[in-house]
Amino acid sequence: MELIIVANQTIQTRKVFPLKTLYYGNEARNKEGLKGRLIIVEGIDGSGKSTQIHLLEQWLRSRNIAVFLTEWNSSDMVKQITSKGKKKGKLTPTTFSLLHATDFADRYERKILPLLRAGYIVLADRYVYTAFARDIVRGCSRNWVHKVYSYALKPDLTFYFKVPIDVAVERILVGRPKLKYYEAGMDLNLSNDPYESYRIFQQRIIDEYDVMAQDEEFAVIDGTSAIEEQQAQVRDLVKGIIPRNQRKILETEPISVGVPA
Amino acid sequence: MELIIVANQTIQTRKVFPLKTLYYGNEARNKEGLKGRLIIVEGIDGSGKSTQIHLLEQWLRSRNIAVFLTEWNSSDMVKQITSKGKKKGKLTPTTFSLLHATDFADRYERKILPLLRAGYIVLADRYVYTAFARDIVRGCSRNWVHKVYSYALKPDLTFYFKVPIDVAVERILVGRPKLKYYEAGMDLNLSNDPYESYRIFQQRIIDEYDVMAQDEEFAVIDGTSAIEEQQAQVRDLVKGIIPRNQRKILETEPISVGVPA
Repeated sequence: MELIIVANQTIQTRKVFPLKTLYYGNEARNKEGLKGRLIIVEGIDGSGKSTQIHLLEQWLRSRNIAVFLTEWNSSDMVKQITSKGKKKGKLTPTTFSLLHATDFADRYERKILPLLRAGYIVLADRYVYTAFARDIVRGCSRNWVHKVYSYALKPDLTFYFKVPIDVAVERILVGRPKLKYYEAGMDLNLSNDPYESYRIFQQRIIDEYDVMAQDEEFAVIDGTSAIEEQQAQVRDLVKGIIPRNQRKILETEPISVGVPA
Repeated sequence: MELIIVANQTIQTRKVFPLKTLYYGNEARNKEGLKGRLIIVEGIDGSGKSTQIHLLEQWLRSRNIAVFLTEWNSSDMVKQITSKGKKKGKLTPTTFSLLHATDFADRYERKILPLLRAGYIVLADRYVYTAFARDIVRGCSRNWVHKVYSYALKPDLTFYFKVPIDVAVERILVGRPKLKYYEAGMDLNLSNDPYESYRIFQQRIIDEYDVMAQDEEFAVIDGTSAIEEQQAQVRDLVKGIIPRNQRKILETEPISVGVPA
């Protein structure tokens, strides 16, 4: 409840100012001195990133640190729209990209940025890099996609959970769930078999992530190692970037991780 | 019916190719040699642009020229979404902009571009310049808005119907219709009175159009002159840019305009 109130208050205040004067992306950090920190996780489905960010969230919360977790495609305003638009074959690569960009902008403006201003540690399960990878694989111009998201703040820390395609596919397709049309990348005409299409699509996304991992200085975590080991690496790096007063709380903690059942 | 079939066929063909190889904006004209022509009208509500483009459409159609008229905000996919999102106060300038960008991209990819490839004269009632003017007045970065629409083909001919704010407002507000929240620019906090807000908002849009009229070489039409006179100017300029075989048909026509009742 408290989180929602904070977000709404900030938005109502914001409406008075035009965006121009508000420093919106990286300038916000320099010129407003954002008090919070933005930590994101990236990786394909089945990479284990969501598990890790939830463990991180629990850990920070248990130390009374103000933390907010936000997920891709979770904006109420756009969710209905996007699922409607995703009916088979209705979207082009550009409209697919722009619908997700709208969803992201809604979360960014109404949650991520206000909460960073308010001093929260904001954890994001997927961020602009998900859009870059997917949209570029779909055929959108790399340059254009970067422009669409050009306002977005560079995260303080980006974890990339790297797993071989076989491992990720096995984790996801256990029980052979029905893959959705766009999820399987069927719009790319890679294969008539959704599972085969999914595999090729995901491998291409991995290739995009691998390029970005270098360019954007991702913290690469081996997603095949033990959950506790991954989480220990995550917490160690997080300690390095959070504000000093909060760091003290965390430094009294041992690095060894107890994973909840 | 024929129009829709042409559009769908083109889209189905397109899905086979990734966008990258398809030349999407101005390169399409250079590299594919688009057979059609793109003619657009811009101006604030009450400028008379819609009347003029409908007259132009009728004229071309009556000469058996393949013509297609497309309007702003008319994509079925996005229409419902946008009106949902427009519930008072739900949209930020960025999400407002991106929702309209999605709508535009849908029309552009599924109608405008395929029909230009098929040789149609495509008439657009509002184009990217409407987005530029509105979004910039709302506070979006000029640079960013231009980037979002950077793929869009430059029109062969852009008419700008210029009218003083008083004339336009009088035409629109006759009978004092209820103005919608975003239509009146109420999100900009310009005034608590919707009519006053609308007037200030529209004047700012005129200011943006005036800048673009020079930069983008709009054909400026005096929107206060007689309808027939405006239409004569429009037809004269249109004759100058349509393909030679079609021009011959039109040149047998007298310039004097019969306006339907």
